[in-house]
Amino acid sequence: MRFSVTYRIAAANLAEARLRAEGIALEQTVEVPADVVPAGFIADQIVGQIVEIGAEAEGRYRATLSYSPESAGFEVAQLLNVIFGNSSIQRGIKVIGFAPGATLAARFPGPRFGIAGVRAACGRPEGGLIVPVLKPQGLGADALATLAYAFASAGADIVKDDHGLADQTSAPFRERVEKISAAVARANAETGGSTRYFANVAGKFDQIEGNLRFAADAGVGGLLVIPGLLGFGLVQRIAADASLNLPVMTHPAFLGSFVQAEDSGISHGVLFGTLQRLAGADISVFPNVGGRFGFTEAECLAIAKACRTPDGPGLPMFPSPGGGMSPDRAAAMRAMYGQDVAYLLGGSLLRHPDRIADTIAAMRRVLDTA
Amino acid sequence: MRFSVTYRIAAANLAEARLRAEGIALEQTVEVPADVVPAGFIADQIVGQIVEIGAEAEGRYRATLSYSPESAGFEVAQLLNVIFGNSSIQRGIKVIGFAPGATLAARFPGPRFGIAGVRAACGRPEGGLIVPVLKPQGLGADALATLAYAFASAGADIVKDDHGLADQTSAPFRERVEKISAAVARANAETGGSTRYFANVAGKFDQIEGNLRFAADAGVGGLLVIPGLLGFGLVQRIAADASLNLPVMTHPAFLGSFVQAEDSGISHGVLFGTLQRLAGADISVFPNVGGRFGFTEAECLAIAKACRTPDGPGLPMFPSPGGGMSPDRAAAMRAMYGQDVAYLLGGSLLRHPDRIADTIAAMRRVLDTA
Repeated sequence: MRFSVTYRIAAANLAEARLRAEGIALEQTVEVPADVVPAGFIADQIVGQIVEIGAEAEGRYRATLSYSPESAGFEVAQLLNVIFGNSSIQRGIKVIGFAPGATLAARFPGPRFGIAGVRAACGRPEGGLIVPVLKPQGLGADALATLAYAFASAGADIVKDDHGLADQTSAPFRERVEKISAAVARANAETGGSTRYFANVAGKFDQIEGNLRFAADAGVGGLLVIPGLLGFGLVQRIAADASLNLPVMTHPAFLGSFVQAEDSGISHGVLFGTLQRLAGADISVFPNVGGRFGFTEAECLAIAKACRTPDGPGLPMFPSPGGGMSPDRAAAMRAMYGQDVAYLLGGSLLRHPDRIADTIAAMRRVLDTA
Repeated sequence: MRFSVTYRIAAANLAEARLRAEGIALEQTVEVPADVVPAGFIADQIVGQIVEIGAEAEGRYRATLSYSPESAGFEVAQLLNVIFGNSSIQRGIKVIGFAPGATLAARFPGPRFGIAGVRAACGRPEGGLIVPVLKPQGLGADALATLAYAFASAGADIVKDDHGLADQTSAPFRERVEKISAAVARANAETGGSTRYFANVAGKFDQIEGNLRFAADAGVGGLLVIPGLLGFGLVQRIAADASLNLPVMTHPAFLGSFVQAEDSGISHGVLFGTLQRLAGADISVFPNVGGRFGFTEAECLAIAKACRTPDGPGLPMFPSPGGGMSPDRAAAMRAMYGQDVAYLLGGSLLRHPDRIADTIAAMRRVLDTA
């Protein structure tokens, strides 16, 4: 069964839109002109096919193209290549929808944990998850572990590395992962809680495999991945691994350019919802409305919807709005997003280190109020 | 020594531009508000510093920020995270310059081969390189090997996989790499030539290390990498490996969104020149002016300049314009780009399979004409 991608196409009229859609069908697959395509399997199956095309607004058309699972193969990187590899470079083409179809749904099962699995792992059957962030960059591993202990002792559901903690000299990946995992385990032992530490995957390309195993052995409770920098394939690789058995949180760094242009790139919901989920993320971080990034409420809700829709791909996942979150905003956020949300708590929590427990408790109260 | 990044910033006036630059200095490093930054090393070194700021045009400012090498660490992915991780998501911020400084220049030495090294490897001391592309997707490994043999016999300098050849069932990575390497070796033995086959790196994340070694053992002459999908870290990893000792060609797929917006993203020269070179690419593919992509002559020349400037980072590399190239255009391209260029030849070459040798010979004559 073929999979399909819906594109928004800038064109003066339907005939031009159809020409452009036919161009996409070639560009994303065979990458040769129509008269050069070999007859048979390649012409009949490999070349993309226009399933539907119609006007959306003045100068804007919407075209759904179907592709063969053979084009995508078994790697999420190659699937993204078919969805938007070369077309990302052309003007006036935006990805606004994706449907895997049965064949790719089986090949790309998506999140290992999903919302229910992460809730079970964190011992939080309902209500928003509270996720304080370990930072700033430049702190040593011991200082980060001390912070993590405070966060976990205060009842955080997840404690995550800032996405800027890589493998720097001030807090090398392995030292950090070991010390923070131990600090969170100690807090859990004392409180009876199940706070999970998500380590930011780092290291040079050929160190990452070893670092994944090291992190799992050190007892991390999940992994943070930046797919814009390390590739969506790393998310797929972790989600597929029963022996690691770790949930994945994805971070949007270096992906912002995909959502800057109205008429090109990838829509917010597809980029931060559908594609993260397709790759296997259990939690997708994105910039919340009202913070220091420019996302609108509608864009954030589109992301949350794509993360949680029962239609897939794969299990529903947590949307995780971040950027300028604080207990003051928790009630409004709960009203906007509902229950199944993982809230990042960043700089606001670090402003008063002696009040970390109070702040997290205050946030918990607001999120748990019916 | 600190490294520096120059941003174009949308702002109403200099005061606002300065505020935004101060925001970038925090966002790209500590990611906490200024009053939360710990005094000492983190405040003094880790937080970005504004080196220079000034007006560029109405509503546009240019700010150069310096960062500590400690922020970047030793991984190109984390360096890109500092350059543009979260700032990619904010409105009106564009990366238009990068200077590594001595510390990062030593950590990130760039291309292993560069222009001179690739020329030596291909036995082409001067003149443009001719690089036919193996496609379309859907052909089997034997058919691709037959094409590669024809290209190599005709005197191609490099024969490269199309970027859409991954690890699909029709031509699995290892089978394809083995058969094409053998076909090119056979042609070289017959002609006395030194055509190099560049295989497109594919496979699931945890198969890639093994596939690199497999490809080297099979006798490939270089590797094609899609950093937008597999990460710039993979380029760094290959370039750093003396035992592989293979040149890297990078492909722009999935990077197009970075150059779609006038006031955000990354400038053409920095994205397809400087950053590819920094990561370690020897040849950078980008869409040529006049093809089916919308790049202007000025944008293409900016890329070529960034690829070849003696100022670094690292050795000068080949710009490789592609998309709709043919012998008819070769003279104009030679006039525009000069000598040190790798020309992709795609669909036009496949239109007349019986004339492949003539077409490549015609292209060679034009490129070699003084």
